[in-house]
This record gives sequence, C-alpha cells and structure tokens, in this order.
Amino acid sequence: MRAVVYNGPFDVSVEEVEDPRIEEPGDAIIRITTANICGSDLHPYEGRADMDAGMVIGHENMGVVEEVGPGVTRIAVGDRVSVPFNIACGTCRNCDQGFTSACLRANPSGMPGAGYGYPMMGPFRGGQAELLRVPWADVNLLELPEGDEHELDVTMLSDVFPTGWHGTELAGMQPGDSVAVFGAGPVGLMAAHSAFLRGASQVFVVDKEADRLALAERFGATAVDLSRVDVEQTILDATDGFGVDAGVEAVGYQAHDAAGEEHPELVLDELVKVVRASGGIGVVGVYVPEDPGAATEQAAEGRIAFDFGTAFTKAIAIGTGQAPVKKYNRQLRDLIIHGRATPGIIVSHEIALDEAPDAYRRFDAREEGWTKVVLHP
Amino acid sequence: MRAVVYNGPFDVSVEEVEDPRIEEPGDAIIRITTANICGSDLHPYEGRADMDAGMVIGHENMGVVEEVGPGVTRIAVGDRVSVPFNIACGTCRNCDQGFTSACLRANPSGMPGAGYGYPMMGPFRGGQAELLRVPWADVNLLELPEGDEHELDVTMLSDVFPTGWHGTELAGMQPGDSVAVFGAGPVGLMAAHSAFLRGASQVFVVDKEADRLALAERFGATAVDLSRVDVEQTILDATDGFGVDAGVEAVGYQAHDAAGEEHPELVLDELVKVVRASGGIGVVGVYVPEDPGAATEQAAEGRIAFDFGTAFTKAIAIGTGQAPVKKYNRQLRDLIIHGRATPGIIVSHEIALDEAPDAYRRFDAREEGWTKVVLHP
Amino acid sequence: MRAVVYNGPFDVSVEEVEDPRIEEPGDAIIRITTANICGSDLHPYEGRADMDAGMVIGHENMGVVEEVGPGVTRIAVGDRVSVPFNIACGTCRNCDQGFTSACLRANPSGMPGAGYGYPMMGPFRGGQAELLRVPWADVNLLELPEGDEHELDVTMLSDVFPTGWHGTELAGMQPGDSVAVFGAGPVGLMAAHSAFLRGASQVFVVDKEADRLALAERFGATAVDLSRVDVEQTILDATDGFGVDAGVEAVGYQAHDAAGEEHPELVLDELVKVVRASGGIGVVGVYVPEDPGAATEQAAEGRIAFDFGTAFTKAIAIGTGQAPVKKYNRQLRDLIIHGRATPGIIVSHEIALDEAPDAYRRFDAREEGWTKVVLHP
Amino acid sequence: MRAVVYNGPFDVSVEEVEDPRIEEPGDAIIRITTANICGSDLHPYEGRADMDAGMVIGHENMGVVEEVGPGVTRIAVGDRVSVPFNIACGTCRNCDQGFTSACLRANPSGMPGAGYGYPMMGPFRGGQAELLRVPWADVNLLELPEGDEHELDVTMLSDVFPTGWHGTELAGMQPGDSVAVFGAGPVGLMAAHSAFLRGASQVFVVDKEADRLALAERFGATAVDLSRVDVEQTILDATDGFGVDAGVEAVGYQAHDAAGEEHPELVLDELVKVVRASGGIGVVGVYVPEDPGAATEQAAEGRIAFDFGTAFTKAIAIGTGQAPVKKYNRQLRDLIIHGRATPGIIVSHEIALDEAPDAYRRFDAREEGWTKVVLHP
Repeated sequence: MRAVVYNGPFDVSVEEVEDPRIEEPGDAIIRITTANICGSDLHPYEGRADMDAGMVIGHENMGVVEEVGPGVTRIAVGDRVSVPFNIACGTCRNCDQGFTSACLRANPSGMPGAGYGYPMMGPFRGGQAELLRVPWADVNLLELPEGDEHELDVTMLSDVFPTGWHGTELAGMQPGDSVAVFGAGPVGLMAAHSAFLRGASQVFVVDKEADRLALAERFGATAVDLSRVDVEQTILDATDGFGVDAGVEAVGYQAHDAAGEEHPELVLDELVKVVRASGGIGVVGVYVPEDPGAATEQAAEGRIAFDFGTAFTKAIAIGTGQAPVKKYNRQLRDLIIHGRATPGIIVSHEIALDEAPDAYRRFDAREEGWTKVVLHP
Repeated sequence: MRAVVYNGPFDVSVEEVEDPRIEEPGDAIIRITTANICGSDLHPYEGRADMDAGMVIGHENMGVVEEVGPGVTRIAVGDRVSVPFNIACGTCRNCDQGFTSACLRANPSGMPGAGYGYPMMGPFRGGQAELLRVPWADVNLLELPEGDEHELDVTMLSDVFPTGWHGTELAGMQPGDSVAVFGAGPVGLMAAHSAFLRGASQVFVVDKEADRLALAERFGATAVDLSRVDVEQTILDATDGFGVDAGVEAVGYQAHDAAGEEHPELVLDELVKVVRASGGIGVVGVYVPEDPGAATEQAAEGRIAFDFGTAFTKAIAIGTGQAPVKKYNRQLRDLIIHGRATPGIIVSHEIALDEAPDAYRRFDAREEGWTKVVLHP
Repeated sequence: MRAVVYNGPFDVSVEEVEDPRIEEPGDAIIRITTANICGSDLHPYEGRADMDAGMVIGHENMGVVEEVGPGVTRIAVGDRVSVPFNIACGTCRNCDQGFTSACLRANPSGMPGAGYGYPMMGPFRGGQAELLRVPWADVNLLELPEGDEHELDVTMLSDVFPTGWHGTELAGMQPGDSVAVFGAGPVGLMAAHSAFLRGASQVFVVDKEADRLALAERFGATAVDLSRVDVEQTILDATDGFGVDAGVEAVGYQAHDAAGEEHPELVLDELVKVVRASGGIGVVGVYVPEDPGAATEQAAEGRIAFDFGTAFTKAIAIGTGQAPVKKYNRQLRDLIIHGRATPGIIVSHEIALDEAPDAYRRFDAREEGWTKVVLHP
Repeated sequence: MRAVVYNGPFDVSVEEVEDPRIEEPGDAIIRITTANICGSDLHPYEGRADMDAGMVIGHENMGVVEEVGPGVTRIAVGDRVSVPFNIACGTCRNCDQGFTSACLRANPSGMPGAGYGYPMMGPFRGGQAELLRVPWADVNLLELPEGDEHELDVTMLSDVFPTGWHGTELAGMQPGDSVAVFGAGPVGLMAAHSAFLRGASQVFVVDKEADRLALAERFGATAVDLSRVDVEQTILDATDGFGVDAGVEAVGYQAHDAAGEEHPELVLDELVKVVRASGGIGVVGVYVPEDPGAATEQAAEGRIAFDFGTAFTKAIAIGTGQAPVKKYNRQLRDLIIHGRATPGIIVSHEIALDEAPDAYRRFDAREEGWTKVVLHP
C-alpha cells in the first residue's frame, strides 16, 4: 500500500510499504477513507520529538473495516468506523476506569498510553496510508452510520473534537459557565465548540491569527486577538471583573508571545490571571518531560516555572493530559448525527495522499488559511 | 479581655485589649474555650507573611456564644460552636457554590477570602483570646453538642481536620484508593485520617520526624521516613509499581530535603513521581504569590519550577487551595460524635493563654513532640 | 395594594389588601414587575389542594427592591431581582447542602420547604400583587441587569426554567444523551430547552395539544403527539430500539390518557418503557401524599402503582421533587443575558392584574393557546 | 464434572455433567475453589422464578484459571480469580459506560444483562460445580493474590459485597452520612459494612432475626429489631428527628411484616418514612416485572403501590437495579488485601459440593444461623 513515511526532520514522503495484516485474534484492518494531519504531527516533523525513520505517520484516522481477526465479535467487515488516537486494551486497571489514554498494556515500552504513528506511543504504524491495523478492534473502534455522510465532521472524532471536549472537562466546566480558550488551532476551536455544546454562556478564544479567530467566531465565540488587545483586561471586563469560570490551554509549551518569542510558561500564567478564584484550568496543549529544543534550560527537562503561588491563592484546579477518546466519542458522534455539532467546518484543505509532503511543509510554515488538512487516501 | 498580640517577627505577647462587640446585625460574640496554634501562624511569626503589629492572632477557634446581633436567627446565646477559619458572607457567587474560602464580600481589601487574625485576610481579630467577634454568625458557626465532650476532637473542626480532608478531596480520592501524604504535620496527619475515613486501602505518610511519623501510624498509615529510605521506590514497591491513586501535598513551598535545605518544588516533584498516570494531587500545603524570604528568585514571585512536563504526560490533575471549611465540618463533626473520627489525638500540649508566647517559640523551633498546641483561655 | 386573592375553588378576585412590610431584619419588599400564573396554581384553584380563603396567590415573581431590613447587606433598594419560588433560610442543614427546596427553618409548620402563596408552604403571601415581602432577602434574591431587557425570559427564572432544568438534572442527563420529556406545558417545554442547552443530541416531547407541541418544535425538539402515534414505538424507533438515556416527568399525578381519562401511574409507566436500561427519570411533575379528588383510592393516599418491577429490572434511577431554584438560577440567568437561552418564547399572554380572574378561568379550561400567562401589576 | 443441578421447585441434586470447554476465543475455564449459595438462588428454588430443569445453578464463583482461549491476552492459566455474577462483553454501549449489569450483547435473548446459572440471564451454566466457562475472560475476571489467603472474604467479591456497596452508591451516600439498611441478609450486611468503609457516621440495620442482627453489630451497626421496636421512631430519635441521609433496600418484593405476612410495598414505604427530605434510597433487593406467586394482583405484574406521593414531597431519589460488579470489585479486593474490609465474617457454613441439596433445604427454611453458605467443590 501507499503511505506517508517519516524520513527525518522536515522530510516526509509517500512510499509503497508492506500491507498491514491481522497479527492478533482481536485485530482489524481498516481501509482509510480520511486521515487528518494533526498539529502534534509537527513535533516529530520539526525534530522536537524523536521518531524512527521509516515510520508511517498519522493518528487521526477513520475508514471502513476490511478484515477482522477471529477474536473480534462486535465489529464486522464493512463497518464504517472512527479510530481513536489512543490504542487501548480495554481491560487493564486504567482502561477499566475509563483512562484509555493511559492503557497499561498496549505500549510494549511499558509506559502508560499507546497510539498510531507517533513517538513514544509504541511500534504501531500510523493511518496516513491506505490501510491501518487496529489492535483490540472491539474495544477501540466506534461504529458510524454507513455511507459518507458527515465525513468531515466524524473524522474529527479520532482526536481533536474529543481532545477539545476533554479540555473543557478537565477544566471542570459546568453549564452556564464562562470559558477562556487559549489557542485557536483545531483543538482550541473544538474546545470552544464543545464549551457551547455543554452550555457555556460565554466563550473567549485567544490567538493572534486572524483566520483562526474568524473560525472561533463561526462557533459563536468572542475572538480575543492577543496582538491587538490586553487579553487579561478584555476578559475581566467581559466578566464583571470576576474572571472566567474555566480556562482551556490548547497551545502547549511552544507558546509564543505577540512578538514571536517562545515562553513555555506564558499560557499557564495568562490562565492563572483570567480564571476566577476557585475556577479550573484544563491543559490539553502538550507539555513534555524532555525537549532538546526548549527555550529554557528548565523547560528542556520539563520544568515550567509558572505562577503556582497565585494559582494556589486563587484555589485553581489544573487538569492535564491526553484525551481518553472513548470516554467522549460516542456522544460526540450522536451530536454530529443529529445535527447539533459541526466540527468539520474547521477543515481548510482536502487532499490526496500524494499531496501530503507539500501539505506538511505549508502547514508547518503556518501558511495563512491552513487550519486543518485531511487526506483521502 | 486578654489576647495573644502580634508585635513583630518572633515577638508575640499576651495583652489586655478592648473587648469585641456586636458591629453588624448578623454578628455574634463567642467566648473562646479552645483556640489552636496553627503551623501557618508561624508564617507571620517568622516574618515571611506581613502582619500589622497589634493584631490579635489565631484562626482555629471554638467556644460558646455570648451575644448575638438582632439579625441572627439560627444561632443562639449559649450554643457551643466551632468557628471555621474562613469568614464567609454566605450569599455571594462564590459562597453560593460552596467556595466559602473565596468569599467575594467578606474581605474589605476586595480579594477573595477572609479570615481571623491572619495577614491578607482582612481586619478581623483572631481568637487566641477570651472573646471573638464572628461576622454572619448564622452562616459561619457550626453548632456542637452541649458540654465539653470531645473538646480536643471538635477543636480540629475549625481548620486542620477539614483542611486535611480537603486535600484528599482535591486529589480526587475514591474509596479503595492508595494515598500518599507528604508532610506529617497536623494537616498531613488529618489528611491520612481522612483518607482512611473515606475508604482508602493504603495510606503512606512521608516525613522525617519520628514523633510525627509515629502519630501517622496511630491513624493506621504506613510511615515513610524520607531520611532513611528512598521514598519513590518504597511507594512504588508497595503499589505493584503502579504508584498511588492520590497524593496530598501538606508541606508547602518551604519544603526541606533530608539535608535540611529548602527547595520550593521538592514535594510537587516527588508527588509527580509517586502518583500513578491519571491520578490526582491535592495541594493544601501553602504556596504564595510573593515571598521575600524565598529560597529562589523564582519562588520569591510565586514561580515553582516543578516537572509539569511529566505531570502532563502522566495526565495528573492538581487541585489547590485553602479548604472551604463549611463544606465538610458538619459531616466531620458527626463522625466525631459517633466515635468514628478521633482527630484530637494529635494534640501534644494543652496550655493557658499566658503560656502562648513560650509555646510559639518552642513550636517554631520544631522542638520534638510539639505537634499541636491548644490554648484554653 | 391590589392583589389576586383566593376565595375558594374556582374563585379568585383582585382585591385591595394591606401592604406588606419589613417584619424581620433580613426582609426585603419587592415591587412586582412581572408575576406568572403557574400550572400548579390550578391545584388550589380546582380545590385539589387546600388553601385558606383570603390568601394572596402567586409564586413566580420578579420585580424591583423597594425596601430592605437592617440585616440585609448584599441586596440594595433599586435592584432588579428574580424571586425563587422556594423560601430558604440559607443556613440550615438542607440549605447548606443546596436543598433550598427543603429548608428546615422557613416553614412554621415544621415541614421542610416553604414558598409564597401556596398550600402547605407556610403563611407567606404570594406575588400576584403589587408588592411582595421576601424573607432572608440576601439569600433568596437573584440580581438581574437593570432596566427591563429580557423581562419575559428572566421572569421564567423564578420557577419553570429552573424546574425544567432540574428535571434533566434529576434524570442524570449527560451531554450527547437522548431525552424524552412527557408533558409540553411550561415545565416540560423548559425541560426540553434545558436538555438542548446541556448538550442533548435528541429531545422528544410527548403531549396531545398541538399548540404546545409546536412550541416544543421551536426549541428544536421532536414532537410526539400521543393522540396520533404509538409513543413507545416512536421513541424506540428513533433510538435504534435502545430507548432514551433520560426521561423527564413533567405531568404529575393528574395524567390523562388520549381518551381524557385520569391515570396517576400513566406517565411513570410510559417512562419506564421508553427509558433505556440503566437510564434515569427525573420527576418534576407533582405527586402528593393526599389527594381527596384522586382517580383511585390508592392515589388518594399517595400510592402510585406503577411498574416498579420493570424499573428495577432495567436498573432505572428515579429522582423526584421540587427544584431548589438557587442551585440553577444564576447560570440560567447568564445563559439568557448572553443570548443562549430564550425561555420567554413560551409566554402566550401578558395581562394586567385585573384580568387575572378571567385568565385563571381560561387557563384552567386549557383553552387553546393559553400556554403561559404573565401579569404585570 | 460434578455440579449442583436444578430439577424443579425445591429439588436440586449433585450430578455428573459434561465438562465445560472453550467455545469462543475469548473464553476461559475456571476450576472453582469456592462458590456461594445466594439468597436469590432461592427464587428459582421456591419456584418463583422460572428455571429450566437440568441447569447448573450458581452465580457467586471464584477459582483458578484452568484454560484460556486464543483471544485471551490478559488473564493466564493459573491465575486465581473472582468471577463477577454479571457476564459482560465489555465493549457495547452499556458496558462502555460501566453498566456491565446491563450488557447488550451477552444475553442471547436480547435482554440487557446476562449471568451464570440463573433464570432470564441466558444459557450460561452456573458455578456450583467443579468447572465454569467464563465468556470474555479478559473483561470479566478479576485477578486475586496467589494462594488461598482471605478466601472467605474474596469469595464475596462475585456478588454480595459489590451488591451491598452498590446499594450505598445508588442511595447517593456521602461520607459522614447516617444510613438505614433494611434487611440483614448477606446483601444488607454488606451494605452496612460498605457504608462504614465509605465513611458513614451511623448505620442502622433493620431486621427481625437475632442472629443476623448480631452480625450487623459486628460490623459496627446499630441493630433495629422490627419485631420489638417502632422502626420509624427509633431511627428518627437517633437522628434528631431528621431521618437518615441514605436508605438501602436489601429485602425485595417478598418482604414480610413482623407477623410474617408478605407486603410488596412494605420496605419502600418504611424507607420513604425514615429517609430525610432530599435524601436517597438504593434498591438492591429484587423486584420483578412478573411474579405468579405474588401477594397481590398488582405485584403479580410488577406494580408496587408504595407512597410515591410522599417520596416526591420529600424529594427523595430512588436508585435501583443489579450491581455492575466490575465497577467496584477491584477497589473492594484492595480493601480486603490491606485488611480494611472483612466481608467473610458473614459465612456461617463451609461445605462440600455433595452437601449442597441439604444446605439449600435448610437455607430456604431460614434455619437459625444459616446466614451464608459457601461450597468448596
């Protein structure tokens, strides 16, 4: 089959590779109909996360089941399915409690959590390819309505929609709350969409890219352009000086200020300022224990020197980590099917597999309008 | 009346001061039967938190109602009551949601949260005295059974018992969980006691003082002496390498390593190591936005450079802040009355008001055996 | 002042009565701008709930503060406020836990729960009048933006909007859920509106009145006309045979079948059928311990012989009771102010106080189009 | 192998039957070390639940894994395991949400929920036998420490301990609460034990059998002998007239009054009386949709005419249904292993398989002291 292969920093190509096959009784093989490029695919692309040359990349996948192993009893050949980016065994202690993002058995390295085509997430090939092997298929696959309706919406179920939703969950968001989302990339936009779906009264989205802020407004949010206004003052003014009830960090440690300089603690500091006393922050932007390319010596070893003293004084709770997709994807699918959710409006480009290398280059360059790219292999 | 008055760093004395009186219709005056010295009273005592000379100190108070204002309808003269350390109006937006620790109206400074005899908490005099004025008495006072039964237990309801309990709550502790508590001072011991009351299967208490670790064992906990063993290894070994489900930070930014050196990020780093992936940490040890005497320049402005990258990778949630005492004190009182909880066993010294200055000196010097001092004015 | 006075079954009139006055330090007097007639006002009107002759009726009230007692510190003269239908002291054990609907101190009868102008709810006069006395004003009043914006929306905050919301809460509704609401009166319509605001994927509203079903559709719900279709089959078909996740009972014990006959157990039986195994039912339609006019001997003493055996087999949870309005009204107000919620579209008639007797007659006769009547005194 | 076979009402015998074998890739075969007789085994025994002649009975099972199918990856031959009474596929919509008691795929009848050796629960043979086939072994089996330590405690993990715990969960019990448990059979005793493990301040256990009430006292509960005292008055007196926060129904529809007469609504009525306004009731005692031997015509078709009017007026929530054992058994196992829980003290008789028929007869006759019988095949 053909697949997007990682060769090294700033170098991906579309190659002919060996087809995947059923390896365990619980496996399924999926024929990919849509695979998205994720902002976090840029971490290995930029050489800031260590990936083996030759790996097939891609963890935002959906398609149609081509073949199943003899131990698969729920999912059947022909089913249209969404593939969560986390690979979960479904029966370990963490999976049992719903933390499929921290599965204790799927990753041969012994570290909690496994995934497709991504550094540290195990040897599993990604889905920017024609075919994909899915372990524990009954556990991991979410069935979708037949056909291709809502394809651009349901392809967001593998990662960014549940991840944005998880941000609001980690922040302890409740109906009626005001919410500030930092970062108007796909995850931040999905957090804003999720916040309104869950009953937010107001949602602020903070970024400096006009095209992304315009998308935030399409979801009903108030755009806050950090290159033009005082973010803290703007949000306090709009909340009677009280601050927002919940904040979502959808940027990560590679945060840049208005002048373009990288400050790992920047977004957490801002959130501590704009979230009210006794409020919550959900961190779905990525922070890593080690980053050779970090802006500061502390950040190189995962230390983020944000204003924890004020966080404590304000009694702010901080939830963190990757989304356990299975916890949310069924409900989010139903919201899409019944016309309540429209995450697919963030898609800026639909392309063929062969165009992936060019798309990586332009997406990485943050070319204007390149919000979200989906591949149709 | 006589009261413990703060004169400046390392200088408190017992003085004759003016009696408190009813100032607002909702006030009550309490005749103090027991007032505890709190570890956090040592922050101003040591000059690391700014207190006005002449202030009456003390926020862990209980007693008998002596007088009530005309707007008080629930509490009556003669009632034996516990006084939560937070002063709450009971009807602002934060109080309405149970966050009496972040009352928006009680502190004339406009900052959320008010209390008795403590820096930044408003002009309210403390209770290490014969009498105490309590604002919004119907809201703030918890009624106790008449007489003096369980006096040493119920006096813990004003602060340390709810604060320890809050640590387990912020950590998201569930029945059956394993729990690690860092710090075997009164709050840490109360967290250990609380954890078992809520159904913990195992509780580890980490400290280096033998007398405090012995108390932890009296509550059923496993003592971990950080001066003798490798804390991380000990806890991982006892939890099948999994780590604990929940961790409680009961030390604060003035943490010292085994060699006695201060490291503000020490305890958070240890907790990130011993708490399992997807677990939680409850921070009730105090962190401050500004600390002139801090060990590092960052800590002086509230920045704590702990390993947030690993926390994110492990999807750990971190709850912080002072306890909203009212959220817990009624239930904890009932556990005491019915013989299930015995927080009073941590009391090491019962003294008269006049002995307070000497007690402050010895408590601050961490003299062996000075775990918890209660004054009977 | 002028007020709507209850004289006996099917007999209300507008009379001159004595003005209310400050009786306790915590009282406020409100000048009513809008007071709604509630479906439950028809219980005494029809003589099925025992009300004293001479009582001023009305528990859905809002207005502007005219006067406050000396113990009132939060609310000020001139504030525009919504008055929850429950009267709560704010500091008893039930109020402390958020159950202001079961306040232990407000009702002199000693029964939990008090309210305005309603049988069994204490001696408090209602608000279908020019003025209203509100006890514990700081506790009970919700401040609204100045002026008269959103008047028809915010007047729903005193009862039906929080009550409908409470129905979804009692049912354990989660985002993404499908919901069936029985009864398209004001409370059922508010439950449907609430369900969508909280992220429902599908909402079915079951009734037989075309005008009310049309309103349900305006809130985005699927109307199910029980006089035309098989309710159970319709809902199962629309949910893959699974049934809805959550059901709301917004009818009460005076339920009538398609033929117009009263069956107290009818709606609970239907809900047990259409709610999925492990789902939940929220009962906000009223059931009473005693009803002299009941359809069956059992119902006369509160016994409702519904299919509890099937409920158990399906592991259905059933939440019941009046809404604790304060738990929700602040958030619902914010949803209105920010344009997310529009409960006021259910208002069918705005009338002057003098027209109340005629309105009662027509509303009680269920004249077509008489969904919700508001009085402007 | 030898097994306890159901021949018809009041007739079980120990027979030689065919050994179970691996039928699906996910199956395991367990060699039973301990299998308990459950009170609900008496429903078919007494002919009040329809069981096929020839069925092997028994759903409270534990043992050692003898063989696994090729799709089993977590559980290994030689593992000592507890077998939850519910059979769950682990991946259907209900299982995904933790409702393994309502699995949508395990029961070939299409009804939610499956189990071993029990009417309506599918064709799966029971475990009062030497061997047992367990479907979806990775999902269903809970691993235990090697050897035979705590055997009488951990054998309670298959049903009664999680079921009693579930009763407290369905009742919404919180730490500090007072709890009333109706029924001092094994499930009621486990509910009392669970309540204290979760932090109850007081637990009342209501029954009329002295031997069972004595066991309740061993768990720290207050015994209330309904044949000697006024239950309602006793509980109200002990709770300041307030009533308990939470009630557990551990009797079921075959409830008998002090005079020995059956009243299906008896226990629910009592609970509605003794539970406080805004409290909760957890129903784990069994109610059925059809009962040919019912005491009343209504009960024969599942209708239980309890005082729902008062339940509504008091805003009581009622949770119902079988326990999803997997939701609790891991934590309860840990409480046993670490010495916090001792459910095994309820065992009154340990017998060999051959003694089962005699044990059934005596257990069904409620002979004094026959609280809980365990078989060691």
